[in-house]
Amino acid sequence: MAGPLFTLTTDFGAGSGFPAQMKAVLLVAFPDARLVDVSHEVPAFDVLAGALMLEACLPWFPREAVHLAVVDPGVGTARRALCVVDPEGRRLLGPDNGLLTPFLGQGARAWALATGGVLAAPRTATFHGRDLFAPAAIYLARGGTPAALGREAADPVRLEWPAAEVAGGELRGVALAADRFGNVVTSIRAADLGGAAVGAAFAGDQPARWVRTFGEGAPGELVALVGSGGRVELAIREGSAAARLGDARGLTIRLVLGPAVSP
Amino acid sequence: MAGPLFTLTTDFGAGSGFPAQMKAVLLVAFPDARLVDVSHEVPAFDVLAGALMLEACLPWFPREAVHLAVVDPGVGTARRALCVVDPEGRRLLGPDNGLLTPFLGQGARAWALATGGVLAAPRTATFHGRDLFAPAAIYLARGGTPAALGREAADPVRLEWPAAEVAGGELRGVALAADRFGNVVTSIRAADLGGAAVGAAFAGDQPARWVRTFGEGAPGELVALVGSGGRVELAIREGSAAARLGDARGLTIRLVLGPAVSP
Amino acid sequence: MAGPLFTLTTDFGAGSGFPAQMKAVLLVAFPDARLVDVSHEVPAFDVLAGALMLEACLPWFPREAVHLAVVDPGVGTARRALCVVDPEGRRLLGPDNGLLTPFLGQGARAWALATGGVLAAPRTATFHGRDLFAPAAIYLARGGTPAALGREAADPVRLEWPAAEVAGGELRGVALAADRFGNVVTSIRAADLGGAAVGAAFAGDQPARWVRTFGEGAPGELVALVGSGGRVELAIREGSAAARLGDARGLTIRLVLGPAVSP
Repeated sequence: MAGPLFTLTTDFGAGSGFPAQMKAVLLVAFPDARLVDVSHEVPAFDVLAGALMLEACLPWFPREAVHLAVVDPGVGTARRALCVVDPEGRRLLGPDNGLLTPFLGQGARAWALATGGVLAAPRTATFHGRDLFAPAAIYLARGGTPAALGREAADPVRLEWPAAEVAGGELRGVALAADRFGNVVTSIRAADLGGAAVGAAFAGDQPARWVRTFGEGAPGELVALVGSGGRVELAIREGSAAARLGDARGLTIRLVLGPAVSP
Repeated sequence: MAGPLFTLTTDFGAGSGFPAQMKAVLLVAFPDARLVDVSHEVPAFDVLAGALMLEACLPWFPREAVHLAVVDPGVGTARRALCVVDPEGRRLLGPDNGLLTPFLGQGARAWALATGGVLAAPRTATFHGRDLFAPAAIYLARGGTPAALGREAADPVRLEWPAAEVAGGELRGVALAADRFGNVVTSIRAADLGGAAVGAAFAGDQPARWVRTFGEGAPGELVALVGSGGRVELAIREGSAAARLGDARGLTIRLVLGPAVSP
Repeated sequence: MAGPLFTLTTDFGAGSGFPAQMKAVLLVAFPDARLVDVSHEVPAFDVLAGALMLEACLPWFPREAVHLAVVDPGVGTARRALCVVDPEGRRLLGPDNGLLTPFLGQGARAWALATGGVLAAPRTATFHGRDLFAPAAIYLARGGTPAALGREAADPVRLEWPAAEVAGGELRGVALAADRFGNVVTSIRAADLGGAAVGAAFAGDQPARWVRTFGEGAPGELVALVGSGGRVELAIREGSAAARLGDARGLTIRLVLGPAVSP
């Protein structure tokens, strides 16, 4: 029988010692805990990048996992701490700053963690990952209910998650973030395409050829494709679209629907 | 029944392949070994930073863990290799270069690893983590006694661990190291405060406001607080105290005891 | 009873979220899977560096492990995907681009993964680690045979693995890659020495003293030694041989056999 499964997503740095302390606390409670690092290299304090990381990764995990997520510029201030149960039953713990947005869709429920009941007051004001979220995760993994962790929160913070818009035969969105390969993730999801063909793509005023996979690009050629996380991405084969596009975040991305045209 | 628990702390780099080789050796001996990385990003050859990492992290782990620690500029030279059992029963393996200082307090015992008995001569002169410390850890996890690993060492190397001093209503220490967020860890521990209030703090000649948590700082403001590792730290909210203070290591840190005063 | 053991070696970056997605897929199939990261920091698209990483690390793991390796500039193009079983029975999965060269020696067998049989078509064209190699690894870990994964490949891609040459009392090779410590790994293996003594070593026209361990070098002195991976390496104690030698890859390395001489 495998022990409870916990995932960790933070901006702490894998080598900072902080993820190890969280794991230690989980191991004291569950000697057979299964511990998986999603990422500890979310850019520091970048809540949007953290939310995109969670969106891309968590759905692949077994449904019974308890997910700890900490990108938390406001730790120790009045920002609330949340337990979220998404419509598919996934359980997440993290700050109430928008980080959990991808799991706060229709049908999700959230509770604001309260101390004094099943949770002790955090030992420090600066490390809620270890001192508040890990104990809450342990409580859930022991079979505790989210409702025992605190009062239901009707209005959790949601990022203004940029949605793609259709206008004049075009699908428009914005560049959101770059990954380690310099690929630029956008606000347009594969689902937004609804199966429509894409004829041409533009990042700002730069044309990008619509392809199925990175490898189809010529060296140095800007291409657009549906990435493995289910979002439209801009990429340059063995190069960096992020570098080409400058500080791309917020740049308008346009997909011209229809058969391929020379841009 | 969970298998034996091993932690690894090195300056090898998590992606260097060296931690993986240590884990492989442990897994050959114990297919059900539980393996936790504390950090592999200790700055290269920085024994003090490694000691601080161990101090901050190891106490959180279950007492039965066997801890491997390798920050070892002198590998292959005459420096001894140690097994340490601290007063609380924690078992550690690492070079005799001060790295294990936090666990060498009153009541700790140390043994200098000897080969030819229960330990084979290391296969290489350059990778004791895999070839000497891992086999010793396996021996301990199988229930072997430290005394069988070698002769007791009465005089293990200890870092001159800078202690805080009280003078004229001030608590004085020094800056020790910076973490990934640019927070500067100091030689002053929470315990040195003995519950006294802090009125003002100084890093060299720069004032730092005493706060309870990072989030209380204004952007750009240097603050001082008790960090999650139990030491006084200097920090700038969403900024880098290390960058502000220059190469901070060794800088005098002063805490003026008493009610808050404008610096 | 421990679950199946999988290792992961990629150029994705440990914090990229991609290794986590691969682990998630493996955990869905095997809740008790044992997952070990070899490295996710292989330099991007550097197939030779990835092959050296695999060569240095995989032989230490238990023989029953299933090894996933992805350094794959050609993902989504016509390059084949392979299952390899080496002469010692190790099972590896990775792209057919030379990455698996160290395990493709005499007696190795390779199969080109085919979809439509036991493997579904990959969900994406861009992330074979998660969508093709992980399912193939699961199939093997369930006891499936490599032959069921596809047709045997008689001609897998092999790197022109530079061999050392003996000429005029010298052993000659080339510099291959640098590790995180700035040590330069060469094409000369310990086995090529055949027990012969080395009198002097040269990296291009720079002399390097032949030593047994890093610690024997004086600060700043270029030394040559047999590294822990079984290859001759160039190193500078607490310094970087890679920096000293410039972009070393391809540099001629010469070992003068015989008793030590002043260079």
